[in-house]
Amino acid sequence: MDSLENLKLAIRTFADERDWDQFHSPKNLVMALSGEAGELAECFQWLTEDQSYNLSDKQRDAVADEIADVQLYLIRLADKLNLDIAQECRRKLLHNAEKYPVDKAKGTAKKYTDL
Amino acid sequence: MDSLENLKLAIRTFADERDWDQFHSPKNLVMALSGEAGELAECFQWLTEDQSYNLSDKQRDAVADEIADVQLYLIRLADKLNLDIAQECRRKLLHNAEKYPVDKAKGTAKKYTDL
Amino acid sequence: MDSLENLKLAIRTFADERDWDQFHSPKNLVMALSGEAGELAECFQWLTEDQSYNLSDKQRDAVADEIADVQLYLIRLADKLNLDIAQECRRKLLHNAEKYPVDKAKGTAKKYTDL
Amino acid sequence: MDSLENLKLAIRTFADERDWDQFHSPKNLVMALSGEAGELAECFQWLTEDQSYNLSDKQRDAVADEIADVQLYLIRLADKLNLDIAQECRRKLLHNAEKYPVDKAKGTAKKYTDL
Repeated sequence: MDSLENLKLAIRTFADERDWDQFHSPKNLVMALSGEAGELAECFQWLTEDQSYNLSDKQRDAVADEIADVQLYLIRLADKLNLDIAQECRRKLLHNAEKYPVDKAKGTAKKYTDL
Repeated sequence: MDSLENLKLAIRTFADERDWDQFHSPKNLVMALSGEAGELAECFQWLTEDQSYNLSDKQRDAVADEIADVQLYLIRLADKLNLDIAQECRRKLLHNAEKYPVDKAKGTAKKYTDL
Repeated sequence: MDSLENLKLAIRTFADERDWDQFHSPKNLVMALSGEAGELAECFQWLTEDQSYNLSDKQRDAVADEIADVQLYLIRLADKLNLDIAQECRRKLLHNAEKYPVDKAKGTAKKYTDL
Repeated sequence: MDSLENLKLAIRTFADERDWDQFHSPKNLVMALSGEAGELAECFQWLTEDQSYNLSDKQRDAVADEIADVQLYLIRLADKLNLDIAQECRRKLLHNAEKYPVDKAKGTAKKYTDL
């Protein structure tokens, strides 16, 4: 079984054992994910881009922790909404491939944004 | 191969083909993830918790899109930092199981926070 | 002098005394603001809407702290970009008044979003 | 009257006229603020720090818009919680001055974080 599916089941068990399902409305989970995304941003806020490629062990551990937290809430959210994350990602990648054709998007960040 | 690994390789190819690796510093990817987490929050901001369980098809499609965007940037970020998301999630779940023992955490959201 | 202007000068002095101007690029300040917005979200993530109106003293103090942090970074950001926050807010309110005319927007959250 | 107080009253009138008070629970307003902070991050995600100091007119207008949106929701949130933003900011600045004494904090971003 794939990793996202395995993790989904592990998180579901974790929450069920603690009777935490009652707190896990999609709305609440989205707020929790915002919180973890914020903690992830805090790890990088004063680093230069160069420094962000070369984290100390302590920084890397902190970042790994926040990445896991974002991932766990994202999987839980998708589970509560009965969405298949991997499938949605594949769909989105196909969509993006059409939106940003290689010959037009090559080497420009302008394609990403309207700015 | 598992889903996160598959997606990592697909995203890597997508970025390489467009020569976008130059924009994908960990710092920048964290900001992009913040942006997508913000769009996800916007989908839910005026919904009650009950409504957040019962999305319309249009709302559900929008949410699926944002979940995919958060996931794609998270995978790309972990790839640039050479972190294995699934492994970090399993480590974090074990850590959380110790931090929130079932008998003490059962049915209380207080365990989650310091408030 | 108005409160936003006063605070701007106080923050500027605070940063100058610590030689922190070098870290306060607009990009970095936006990341710092994301972090504080995330901490604000964490204060509310497991609360119901009703509970969010009735915070305990401890919760209220924590929220006040995070509101201040968001505000301080927002003022600093606007200062670095030479933007007048109060003026931009007045402009935006006028814009919103046109976008959401009273007779059409009354009592509906649908007007806020495209969902 | 100071700018934050003026804006608070203007926003209150705006919401009352549209009967939007019912949607403005503190929890919902925090989510709306997360959304706007995310849009602000999107303006800067692919810019270098140097570029973030030198925005084009179009970029600067977009940033001004998002700064206003964050500010408006922050003021509305504080109003609903009966918190005085300016007072909380002054309190926080005093707290930070003690936490980061000039002689120890000078020129180091390490003082900001635990990393």
